[in-house]
Amino acid sequence: MEQSIKRIKRELKYQGAIVDMYTDTVELPDGKTAQWDYIEHRKGAAAVVAVLPDGKLLMVRQYRNALERDTLEIPAGARNSKEEPHIVCAARELEEETGYRCENLEYLISIKTTVAFCNEAIEVFVARDLIPSKQHLDPDEYVELEAHTLEELVRWIYEGKIQDSKTVAAILAYKNKYE
Amino acid sequence: MEQSIKRIKRELKYQGAIVDMYTDTVELPDGKTAQWDYIEHRKGAAAVVAVLPDGKLLMVRQYRNALERDTLEIPAGARNSKEEPHIVCAARELEEETGYRCENLEYLISIKTTVAFCNEAIEVFVARDLIPSKQHLDPDEYVELEAHTLEELVRWIYEGKIQDSKTVAAILAYKNKYE
Repeated sequence: MEQSIKRIKRELKYQGAIVDMYTDTVELPDGKTAQWDYIEHRKGAAAVVAVLPDGKLLMVRQYRNALERDTLEIPAGARNSKEEPHIVCAARELEEETGYRCENLEYLISIKTTVAFCNEAIEVFVARDLIPSKQHLDPDEYVELEAHTLEELVRWIYEGKIQDSKTVAAILAYKNKYE
Repeated sequence: MEQSIKRIKRELKYQGAIVDMYTDTVELPDGKTAQWDYIEHRKGAAAVVAVLPDGKLLMVRQYRNALERDTLEIPAGARNSKEEPHIVCAARELEEETGYRCENLEYLISIKTTVAFCNEAIEVFVARDLIPSKQHLDPDEYVELEAHTLEELVRWIYEGKIQDSKTVAAILAYKNKYE
Protein backbone atom coordinates (compact mmCIF):
# COMPACT_ATOMS: atom_id res chain seq x y z
CA MET A 1 0.00 0.00 0.00
CA GLU A 2 2.92 2.37 0.65
CA GLN A 3 3.71 2.24 -3.06
CA SER A 4 0.34 3.41 -4.25
CA ILE A 5 0.46 7.06 -3.14
CA LYS A 6 3.62 8.94 -4.05
CA ARG A 7 4.68 12.40 -2.87
CA ILE A 8 6.10 14.38 -5.76
CA LYS A 9 6.65 17.76 -4.09
CA ARG A 10 6.85 19.29 -0.60
CA GLU A 11 6.75 23.07 -0.31
CA LEU A 12 7.39 24.98 2.92
CA LYS A 13 4.62 27.54 3.33
CA TYR A 14 5.27 28.93 6.80
CA GLN A 15 7.81 28.38 9.53
CA GLY A 16 6.26 28.63 13.00
CA ALA A 17 7.66 28.58 16.53
CA ILE A 18 7.28 24.84 17.07
CA VAL A 19 5.65 23.59 13.86
CA ASP A 20 6.09 24.30 10.15
CA MET A 21 3.41 24.18 7.49
CA TYR A 22 3.93 22.58 4.11
CA THR A 23 1.84 21.81 1.05
CA ASP A 24 2.55 18.38 -0.33
CA THR A 25 1.66 17.39 -3.86
CA VAL A 26 0.91 13.67 -4.05
CA GLU A 27 0.26 11.39 -6.98
CA LEU A 28 -2.71 9.11 -6.35
CA PRO A 29 -2.99 5.51 -7.62
CA ASP A 30 -5.29 6.65 -10.44
CA GLY A 31 -2.57 9.02 -11.72
CA LYS A 32 -4.29 12.21 -10.56
CA THR A 33 -2.57 14.59 -8.20
CA ALA A 34 -3.82 16.13 -4.95
CA GLN A 35 -2.52 18.82 -2.60
CA TRP A 36 -2.41 17.84 1.06
CA ASP A 37 -1.48 19.85 4.15
CA TYR A 38 1.51 18.69 6.15
CA ILE A 39 2.38 20.10 9.57
CA GLU A 40 5.83 19.20 10.78
CA HIS A 41 6.38 19.09 14.52
CA ARG A 42 10.13 19.49 14.60
CA LYS A 43 11.11 17.69 17.76
CA GLY A 44 8.56 15.15 18.96
CA ALA A 45 7.56 14.93 22.60
CA ALA A 46 7.28 12.76 25.69
CA ALA A 47 4.65 12.47 28.41
CA VAL A 48 4.48 10.83 31.83
CA VAL A 49 1.85 9.01 33.89
CA ALA A 50 3.27 10.01 37.28
CA VAL A 51 2.03 7.82 40.14
CA LEU A 52 2.21 9.07 43.74
CA PRO A 53 2.71 6.59 46.62
CA ASP A 54 -1.06 6.75 47.39
CA GLY A 55 -1.87 5.77 43.79
CA LYS A 56 -3.05 9.20 42.73
CA LEU A 57 -1.74 10.58 39.44
CA LEU A 58 0.02 13.92 39.16
CA MET A 59 -1.73 16.13 36.62
CA VAL A 60 -1.08 19.60 35.27
CA ARG A 61 -3.74 22.19 34.60
CA GLN A 62 -2.83 24.87 32.10
CA TYR A 63 -4.40 27.38 29.77
CA ARG A 64 -4.43 26.17 26.17
CA ASN A 65 -4.60 29.01 23.68
CA ALA A 66 -5.70 26.68 20.85
CA LEU A 67 -8.82 25.72 22.81
CA GLU A 68 -9.29 29.04 24.61
CA ARG A 69 -9.70 27.27 27.95
CA ASP A 70 -7.66 25.37 30.50
CA THR A 71 -7.14 21.62 30.29
CA LEU A 72 -6.12 18.85 32.67
CA GLU A 73 -3.26 16.83 31.20
CA ILE A 74 -0.50 14.47 32.16
CA PRO A 75 2.93 16.16 32.38
CA ALA A 76 4.49 16.39 28.91
CA GLY A 77 6.71 18.46 26.69
CA ALA A 78 8.71 18.64 23.52
CA ARG A 79 12.21 17.23 23.22
CA ASN A 80 15.05 19.75 23.40
CA SER A 81 16.30 18.45 20.08
CA LYS A 82 15.70 15.58 17.68
CA GLU A 83 18.61 13.85 19.39
CA GLU A 84 17.23 13.89 22.94
CA PRO A 85 16.07 10.36 23.84
CA HIS A 86 12.35 10.33 24.64
CA ILE A 87 12.94 8.84 28.08
CA VAL A 88 15.36 11.68 28.95
CA CYS A 89 12.78 14.20 27.75
CA ALA A 90 10.10 12.51 29.87
CA ALA A 91 12.23 12.64 33.02
CA ARG A 92 13.16 16.27 32.36
CA GLU A 93 9.58 17.39 31.68
CA LEU A 94 8.33 15.52 34.74
CA GLU A 95 10.77 17.38 36.96
CA GLU A 96 10.25 20.75 35.26
CA GLU A 97 6.46 20.65 35.38
CA THR A 98 5.80 18.82 38.65
CA GLY A 99 8.91 19.21 40.79
CA TYR A 100 9.31 15.44 41.11
CA ARG A 101 12.17 13.32 39.81
CA CYS A 102 12.00 9.68 38.82
CA GLU A 103 14.91 7.38 38.16
CA ASN A 104 13.04 4.42 36.72
CA LEU A 105 10.69 5.47 33.96
CA GLU A 106 8.88 2.60 32.30
CA TYR A 107 7.73 2.73 28.66
CA LEU A 108 3.93 2.58 28.23
CA ILE A 109 2.77 3.51 24.69
CA SER A 110 3.58 5.69 21.68
CA ILE A 111 1.04 7.89 19.96
CA LYS A 112 0.86 9.99 16.83
CA THR A 113 -1.51 12.79 17.74
CA THR A 114 -3.08 13.61 14.39
CA VAL A 115 -2.03 11.36 11.54
CA ALA A 116 -4.13 13.01 8.84
CA PHE A 117 -1.84 16.01 8.53
CA CYS A 118 0.91 16.09 11.19
CA ASN A 119 3.91 13.97 12.20
CA GLU A 120 3.76 14.79 15.93
CA ALA A 121 4.86 11.76 17.96
CA ILE A 122 4.61 11.37 21.73
CA GLU A 123 6.15 8.56 23.76
CA VAL A 124 4.43 7.94 27.08
CA PHE A 125 6.17 6.59 30.19
CA VAL A 126 5.07 5.58 33.69
CA ALA A 127 6.91 7.10 36.67
CA ARG A 128 6.71 5.66 40.18
CA ASP A 129 8.95 6.12 43.24
CA LEU A 130 8.85 9.86 42.74
CA ILE A 131 11.52 11.92 44.50
CA PRO A 132 10.58 15.48 45.55
CA SER A 133 12.73 18.01 43.70
CA LYS A 134 12.06 21.50 42.39
CA GLN A 135 9.57 22.70 39.76
CA HIS A 136 11.21 24.94 37.13
CA LEU A 137 8.90 25.95 34.34
CA ASP A 138 9.78 27.48 30.97
CA PRO A 139 9.42 31.28 30.81
CA ASP A 140 6.08 31.09 28.94
CA GLU A 141 4.75 28.08 30.87
CA TYR A 142 2.13 28.46 33.60
CA VAL A 143 0.82 25.23 35.08
CA GLU A 144 -0.98 24.25 38.26
CA LEU A 145 -0.29 20.87 39.82
CA GLU A 146 -3.14 18.57 40.88
CA ALA A 147 -3.38 14.96 42.05
CA HIS A 148 -6.38 12.76 41.34
CA THR A 149 -7.34 9.13 41.72
CA LEU A 150 -7.32 6.96 38.62
CA GLU A 151 -11.03 6.26 39.13
CA GLU A 152 -11.82 9.98 39.07
CA LEU A 153 -9.69 10.62 35.98
CA VAL A 154 -11.31 7.77 34.06
CA ARG A 155 -14.75 9.09 34.99
CA TRP A 156 -13.75 12.55 33.72
CA ILE A 157 -12.73 11.03 30.37
CA TYR A 158 -16.25 9.67 29.85
CA GLU A 159 -17.78 12.91 31.14
CA GLY A 160 -15.75 14.93 28.62
CA LYS A 161 -13.82 16.82 31.30
CA ILE A 162 -10.55 15.32 30.06
CA GLN A 163 -10.26 15.36 26.26
CA ASP A 164 -6.56 15.84 25.51
CA SER A 165 -5.73 12.82 23.34
CA LYS A 166 -2.36 11.93 24.89
CA THR A 167 -3.94 12.14 28.36
CA VAL A 168 -6.98 10.02 27.45
CA ALA A 169 -4.79 7.41 25.73
CA ALA A 170 -2.19 7.34 28.53
CA ILE A 171 -4.63 7.10 31.45
CA LEU A 172 -6.66 4.33 29.81
CA ALA A 173 -3.50 2.46 28.76
CA TYR A 174 -2.19 2.69 32.32
CA LYS A 175 -5.51 1.51 33.80
CA ASN A 176 -5.83 -1.37 31.36
CA LYS A 177 -2.27 -2.54 32.01
CA TYR A 178 -1.97 -2.17 35.77
CA GLU A 179 -5.45 -2.23 37.33
CA MET B 1 -6.64 30.63 35.17
CA GLU B 2 -8.28 31.54 31.84
CA GLN B 3 -7.78 35.20 32.76
CA SER B 4 -4.03 35.02 33.16
CA ILE B 5 -2.95 34.52 29.54
CA LYS B 6 -4.50 36.89 27.03
CA ARG B 7 -4.34 36.69 23.25
CA ILE B 8 -3.73 40.14 21.77
CA LYS B 9 -3.32 39.28 18.08
CA ARG B 10 -4.03 36.41 15.67
CA GLU B 11 -2.46 36.57 12.21
CA LEU B 12 -3.29 34.17 9.39
CA LYS B 13 -0.01 32.94 7.89
CA TYR B 14 -1.14 30.26 5.46
CA GLN B 15 -4.42 28.80 4.33
CA GLY B 16 -4.19 25.07 3.66
CA ALA B 17 -6.57 22.49 2.25
CA ILE B 18 -8.02 21.39 5.60
CA VAL B 19 -6.07 23.43 8.18
CA ASP B 20 -4.91 27.04 8.41
CA MET B 21 -1.80 28.28 10.17
CA TYR B 22 -1.79 31.36 12.38
CA THR B 23 0.71 33.12 14.63
CA ASP B 24 -0.89 34.25 17.88
CA THR B 25 0.64 36.93 20.06
CA VAL B 26 -0.22 36.34 23.70
CA GLU B 27 0.34 38.42 26.80
CA LEU B 28 1.65 36.32 29.67
CA PRO B 29 0.81 36.90 33.35
CA ASP B 30 4.18 38.62 33.89
CA GLY B 31 3.33 41.20 31.21
CA LYS B 32 5.71 39.82 28.60
CA THR B 33 4.48 38.70 25.20
CA ALA B 34 5.09 35.46 23.34
CA GLN B 35 4.34 34.20 19.83
CA TRP B 36 2.59 30.86 19.64
CA ASP B 37 1.63 28.71 16.66
CA TYR B 38 -2.05 28.02 16.12
CA ILE B 39 -3.35 25.50 13.60
CA GLU B 40 -7.05 25.74 12.92
CA HIS B 41 -8.83 22.60 11.80
CA ARG B 42 -11.83 24.16 10.14
CA LYS B 43 -14.48 21.52 10.54
CA GLY B 44 -13.81 19.07 13.36
CA ALA B 45 -14.28 15.35 12.89
CA ALA B 46 -16.00 12.18 14.06
CA ALA B 47 -14.82 8.60 14.45
CA VAL B 48 -16.51 5.25 15.02
CA VAL B 49 -15.78 2.07 16.97
CA ALA B 50 -17.70 -0.26 14.65
CA VAL B 51 -18.54 -3.61 16.23
CA LEU B 52 -19.38 -6.61 14.05
CA PRO B 53 -21.81 -9.30 15.29
CA ASP B 54 -18.85 -11.55 16.21
CA GLY B 55 -17.34 -8.78 18.38
CA LYS B 56 -14.54 -7.91 15.97
CA LEU B 57 -13.96 -4.23 15.21
CA LEU B 58 -13.95 -2.83 11.69
CA MET B 59 -10.69 -1.02 11.00
CA VAL B 60 -9.33 0.89 8.03
CA ARG B 61 -5.77 0.68 6.79
CA GLN B 62 -4.56 3.65 4.78
CA TYR B 63 -1.38 5.38 3.70
CA ARG B 64 -0.66 8.47 5.80
CA ASN B 65 1.51 10.96 4.00
CA ALA B 66 2.43 12.77 7.27
CA LEU B 67 3.98 9.56 8.65
CA GLU B 68 5.15 8.16 5.31
CA ARG B 69 3.65 4.77 6.10
CA ASP B 70 0.26 3.11 6.41
CA THR B 71 -1.69 3.05 9.66
CA LEU B 72 -4.50 0.99 11.14
CA GLU B 73 -7.29 3.27 12.39
CA ILE B 74 -10.92 3.29 13.32
CA PRO B 75 -13.16 4.75 10.59
CA ALA B 76 -13.21 8.55 10.83
CA GLY B 77 -13.47 11.72 8.86
CA ALA B 78 -14.01 15.45 8.91
CA ARG B 79 -17.44 17.02 9.07
CA ASN B 80 -18.84 18.35 5.78
CA SER B 81 -19.31 21.72 7.46
CA LYS B 82 -19.21 23.26 10.91
CA GLU B 83 -22.97 22.77 11.04
CA GLU B 84 -22.99 18.99 10.47
CA PRO B 85 -23.80 17.26 13.78
CA HIS B 86 -20.94 14.96 14.83
CA ILE B 87 -23.23 11.94 15.01
CA VAL B 88 -24.36 12.52 11.41
CA CYS B 89 -20.73 12.83 10.34
CA ALA B 90 -19.90 9.59 12.18
CA ALA B 91 -22.71 7.67 10.46
CA ARG B 92 -21.74 9.10 7.07
CA GLU B 93 -18.02 8.32 7.44
CA LEU B 94 -18.78 4.82 8.69
CA GLU B 95 -20.81 4.09 5.57
CA GLU B 96 -18.38 5.82 3.19
CA GLU B 97 -15.28 4.09 4.51
CA THR B 98 -16.59 0.66 5.47
CA GLY B 99 -19.77 0.10 3.49
CA TYR B 100 -21.81 -0.48 6.65
CA ARG B 101 -24.66 1.64 7.98
CA CYS B 102 -25.71 1.99 11.59
CA GLU B 103 -28.92 3.54 12.84
CA ASN B 104 -28.08 3.68 16.54
CA LEU B 105 -24.73 5.29 17.16
CA GLU B 106 -23.85 5.68 20.82
CA TYR B 107 -21.59 8.47 22.10
CA LEU B 108 -18.32 7.24 23.63
CA ILE B 109 -15.75 10.05 24.17
CA SER B 110 -14.51 13.36 22.79
CA ILE B 111 -10.86 14.11 22.15
CA LYS B 112 -8.77 17.09 21.20
CA THR B 113 -5.91 15.63 19.21
CA THR B 114 -3.11 18.06 19.94
CA VAL B 115 -3.99 20.81 22.42
CA ALA B 116 -0.60 22.56 22.38
CA PHE B 117 -1.16 24.16 18.99
CA CYS B 118 -4.35 22.92 17.26
CA ASN B 119 -8.10 23.02 17.87
CA GLU B 120 -8.90 19.71 16.15
CA ALA B 121 -11.78 17.98 17.93
CA ILE B 122 -13.01 14.44 17.32
CA GLU B 123 -16.16 12.92 18.76
CA VAL B 124 -16.10 9.15 18.96
CA PHE B 125 -19.19 6.92 18.73
CA VAL B 126 -19.87 3.20 19.02
CA ALA B 127 -21.79 1.47 16.21
CA ARG B 128 -23.41 -1.94 16.59
CA ASP B 129 -26.14 -3.69 14.56
CA LEU B 130 -24.32 -2.84 11.36
CA ILE B 131 -26.29 -3.04 8.14
CA PRO B 132 -24.35 -3.94 4.95
CA SER B 133 -24.48 -1.07 2.47
CA LYS B 134 -22.00 0.26 -0.08
CA GLN B 135 -18.51 1.72 0.41
CA HIS B 136 -18.05 5.03 -1.42
CA LEU B 137 -14.73 6.71 -0.76
CA ASP B 138 -13.68 10.28 -1.48
CA PRO B 139 -11.76 10.73 -4.76
CA ASP B 140 -8.39 10.98 -2.92
CA GLU B 141 -9.17 8.32 -0.32
CA TYR B 142 -7.74 4.81 -0.54
CA VAL B 143 -8.48 2.54 2.38
CA GLU B 144 -8.47 -1.19 2.98
CA LEU B 145 -10.98 -2.70 5.34
CA GLU B 146 -9.92 -5.14 8.09
CA ALA B 147 -11.63 -6.73 11.10
CA HIS B 148 -9.79 -7.63 14.28
CA THR B 149 -10.62 -8.82 17.77
CA LEU B 150 -10.51 -6.30 20.58
CA GLU B 151 -7.85 -8.39 22.31
CA GLU B 152 -5.60 -8.23 19.25
CA LEU B 153 -6.08 -4.47 18.81
CA VAL B 154 -5.27 -3.78 22.47
CA ARG B 155 -2.13 -5.89 22.19
CA TRP B 156 -1.08 -3.91 19.09
CA ILE B 157 -1.45 -0.66 21.05
CA TYR B 158 1.10 -1.85 23.61
CA GLU B 159 3.34 -3.25 20.85
CA GLY B 160 3.32 0.12 19.06
CA LYS B 161 1.59 -1.25 15.96
CA ILE B 162 -1.39 1.05 16.55
CA GLN B 163 -0.34 4.60 17.46
CA ASP B 164 -3.00 6.89 16.00
CA SER B 165 -4.24 8.82 19.05
CA LYS B 166 -7.96 8.71 18.28
CA THR B 167 -7.73 4.97 17.65
CA VAL B 168 -5.74 4.26 20.84
CA ALA B 169 -8.11 6.40 22.94
CA ALA B 170 -11.27 4.97 21.35
CA ILE B 171 -10.29 1.30 21.55
CA LEU B 172 -9.20 1.57 25.18
CA ALA B 173 -12.29 3.64 26.10
CA TYR B 174 -14.50 1.01 24.46
CA LYS B 175 -12.69 -1.85 26.21
CA ASN B 176 -12.81 -0.16 29.60
CA LYS B 177 -16.52 0.62 29.28
CA TYR B 178 -17.88 -2.59 27.79
CA GLU B 179 -15.52 -5.46 28.57
